[in-house]
Amino acid sequence: MNYSIIFYIIGWILKVEAALMLLPCGVAVIYGERDGIGLAATAAVCLILGILMTWKKSENQIFYAAEGLVTVALSWLVLSVAGAVPFVISGYITNPVDALFEAVSGFTTTGASILTDVEALPYCLLFWRSFTHWIGGMGVLVFLLIVLPMTGGSHMNLMKAESPGPIVSRLVPKVQSTAKILYGIYIVLTIVELVFLLAGRMPLFDALATSFGTAGTGGFGIKNDSMAGYSPYIQNVVTVFMILFGINFNAYFLILMGKVGQALKMEEVRAYLLVIAAAIALISWNSLELFSSLGESVHHAAFQVGSIITTTGFATTNFDLWPQLSRSVLVVLMFIGACAGSTGGGIKVSRLIILAKTVRKELIQMVHPHAVKKVKMDGKLIEHEVVRATNVYMVAYVLIFVFSCLLVSLDGQSLVTNFTAVAATFNNIGPGLEMVGPSGNFQIFSNFAKLVLIFDMLAGRLEIFPILVLFSRETWRRF
Amino acid sequence: MNYSIIFYIIGWILKVEAALMLLPCGVAVIYGERDGIGLAATAAVCLILGILMTWKKSENQIFYAAEGLVTVALSWLVLSVAGAVPFVISGYITNPVDALFEAVSGFTTTGASILTDVEALPYCLLFWRSFTHWIGGMGVLVFLLIVLPMTGGSHMNLMKAESPGPIVSRLVPKVQSTAKILYGIYIVLTIVELVFLLAGRMPLFDALATSFGTAGTGGFGIKNDSMAGYSPYIQNVVTVFMILFGINFNAYFLILMGKVGQALKMEEVRAYLLVIAAAIALISWNSLELFSSLGESVHHAAFQVGSIITTTGFATTNFDLWPQLSRSVLVVLMFIGACAGSTGGGIKVSRLIILAKTVRKELIQMVHPHAVKKVKMDGKLIEHEVVRATNVYMVAYVLIFVFSCLLVSLDGQSLVTNFTAVAATFNNIGPGLEMVGPSGNFQIFSNFAKLVLIFDMLAGRLEIFPILVLFSRETWRRF
Repeated sequence: MNYSIIFYIIGWILKVEAALMLLPCGVAVIYGERDGIGLAATAAVCLILGILMTWKKSENQIFYAAEGLVTVALSWLVLSVAGAVPFVISGYITNPVDALFEAVSGFTTTGASILTDVEALPYCLLFWRSFTHWIGGMGVLVFLLIVLPMTGGSHMNLMKAESPGPIVSRLVPKVQSTAKILYGIYIVLTIVELVFLLAGRMPLFDALATSFGTAGTGGFGIKNDSMAGYSPYIQNVVTVFMILFGINFNAYFLILMGKVGQALKMEEVRAYLLVIAAAIALISWNSLELFSSLGESVHHAAFQVGSIITTTGFATTNFDLWPQLSRSVLVVLMFIGACAGSTGGGIKVSRLIILAKTVRKELIQMVHPHAVKKVKMDGKLIEHEVVRATNVYMVAYVLIFVFSCLLVSLDGQSLVTNFTAVAATFNNIGPGLEMVGPSGNFQIFSNFAKLVLIFDMLAGRLEIFPILVLFSRETWRRF
Repeated sequence: MNYSIIFYIIGWILKVEAALMLLPCGVAVIYGERDGIGLAATAAVCLILGILMTWKKSENQIFYAAEGLVTVALSWLVLSVAGAVPFVISGYITNPVDALFEAVSGFTTTGASILTDVEALPYCLLFWRSFTHWIGGMGVLVFLLIVLPMTGGSHMNLMKAESPGPIVSRLVPKVQSTAKILYGIYIVLTIVELVFLLAGRMPLFDALATSFGTAGTGGFGIKNDSMAGYSPYIQNVVTVFMILFGINFNAYFLILMGKVGQALKMEEVRAYLLVIAAAIALISWNSLELFSSLGESVHHAAFQVGSIITTTGFATTNFDLWPQLSRSVLVVLMFIGACAGSTGGGIKVSRLIILAKTVRKELIQMVHPHAVKKVKMDGKLIEHEVVRATNVYMVAYVLIFVFSCLLVSLDGQSLVTNFTAVAATFNNIGPGLEMVGPSGNFQIFSNFAKLVLIFDMLAGRLEIFPILVLFSRETWRRF
């Protein structure tokens, strides 16, 4: 294990975080909030630590898969711990576990909160909370790849470990350029949403926070009623952009390259949009009696479906009160998640496509044992390696899910609360059902259960293996 | 597709079923019940149909995997439909869907019931109901392999399609002898349980029905309160035998061959017993306050754990009222299921072992990319083919599970009711939680939901693929 390079990169992460904290400090200055001092102090400490840790450049820049996984996991832990400090210093969240929960929920773009009264927070902390979504959405190490030109050429391992989905492809041969393109698309889409929101007369602060939450598919609201208080126009803009940020960014790259046809033919994007359309239709019909018109029913169904499948977690209405079929559909969407290569979480549409295709192949082969059938996606053969990794991912996913549910159930909450709390954190959504529904809160859980859910949020965002490798005995055994 | 051999075998299934129905007819004679007429009439019709269908022996006895799967699926459908007729003729179950539900629940050894007052049934029908468990437990086609010596040598495909677990191994080179040994062990164990129950002064009829229900890991009770009314001795005997019938029958065969050490070293059996012990300990501790003493708590925990993990479904107490952790543990046990090669259902312990080992292997390989690590069980290498089949099984399992939950949720029952109703039928257990808990009933569902659950019971018992192949377009496409 190349410890020095891991140490070096984490130093850089701290410097980047210090720089990013300057934005909410600026917000504090604008609104004249003294709570900005906590942010500034944390930023200063991060900066000093970061400078010390990166003083001596690591000589050995070689980076294997194991280093990539461990670095990513540790970076996210450090990022979260440092990000939690301002909440504690300012006194708005006194329990350190709660503060860590909120910070992890932010960076992992979960959006689950332990705060019962969000509106009591000062603007600078509200800004920081929403901004963590934006940072975590595209990934902080992907960002680091832009600012920190690394030699050695094996930093693909860093990107692979942080980016979601079964196949992480470089858009262009150079990893650094790929990272730049991804962030470019990300920034442009965020600005476009901001403009649309401002056009709907949303206050600038609200529009910024909402854009960050949508772009990262995070879901922290700055109002106690999430998005319910905003105009239907604003809600519709958010619906559209949630769905856009859940699309595989490769599609946008293809469009940029003028290959619109190829982008529209991407199987994952098609399946994703099809599932959204089907879910909206089903829920609009099923929950029709709750609303005054079909239009209103479709409006709310679309918002909630977009919010849940992209794992954003904003709410315009308390969907925990919807009929059973609608609630069940939402629970299923929680697991499906968004496209690979998007900012959304969950299992990812492409994984499910791969899995469904392997079942189909198996069925055909049972009936026609001599038929040779290959699993393809977008016309390309899916390598055996990818299928295996997908299967292993699913098994690890289910195992962690089940253990988390059991551990959380020690608190004695209802089955649905526990199940959806784990589903909402592990898939980085935010709200679940019953006690953790849109009008509920994660404050009901004990510190122990919160730590389990913190683990789930990190494991969910980093797609399990970095976190498992970090805690695996094998990794730290010298040999 | 070799239609003539499929037709021929189904004819034989009808003849066997006619013969088996003579037993409840005998019960009707003993108790002087006129309801036996329905049974006798059904048996007669089955016999005539069977004789006609097997009049001409199929010339082409060649049997491929596809024929095996389709034959098994069709046989079980025919078996269930014929088995449902006596309930309707006798007038005790008027809705044909209900009767089919009850028959499928019997043959698949699920034990879920739509009857609200079991004790109202005459003895002959109660006997038939419990006897279907015993027939379905070891499998009717495995039985047919004993009475119907088939030439061609490819009837292994029949056994493979009906027997549970990821690897179906012949105990001895000849399939027919394997079938005989399995049924031999099955009959002896059933008789031993019967003797133990009679020793506890259980009435003969009750002891027979209970033995059938335990042996097949079915769970139909002949009392409205399931096993709650019997003495602790009888409950303990049932606990022990439920657990014994959940053990891989290969272990018993090894013991018969004098290889006791080898039997005790079987990884699946060890893991199975370990999970049982852990679950009993956890639940006894967690539900301690509900009972007057630790002994009583362990007694009920052991019965329920044995009942659920073996997918039997008997109950001594309403475990739906237990604390959350205990309920959650029981839900997890519902999915684990018993050992492969036993009469129990669920995912099977050996499948989970294989899956857990693949994750471990993957983790090690991530950290040490050059390490060569193989997945082994009982010292033998697990073939790549088996791992793939296990993964595909799990994916199909989850897909069917999710779709079933959605379809059932159309009825508007609670999430936990729907989820555990599907879990209880798909894993062939019987009771779930809330409305389908030990004191609840499947009568609450609509005909449509019942049909979905009937599908789940069959798919669960036959481990999905025979049923999927039967309904797959590919199978019936001529080429």
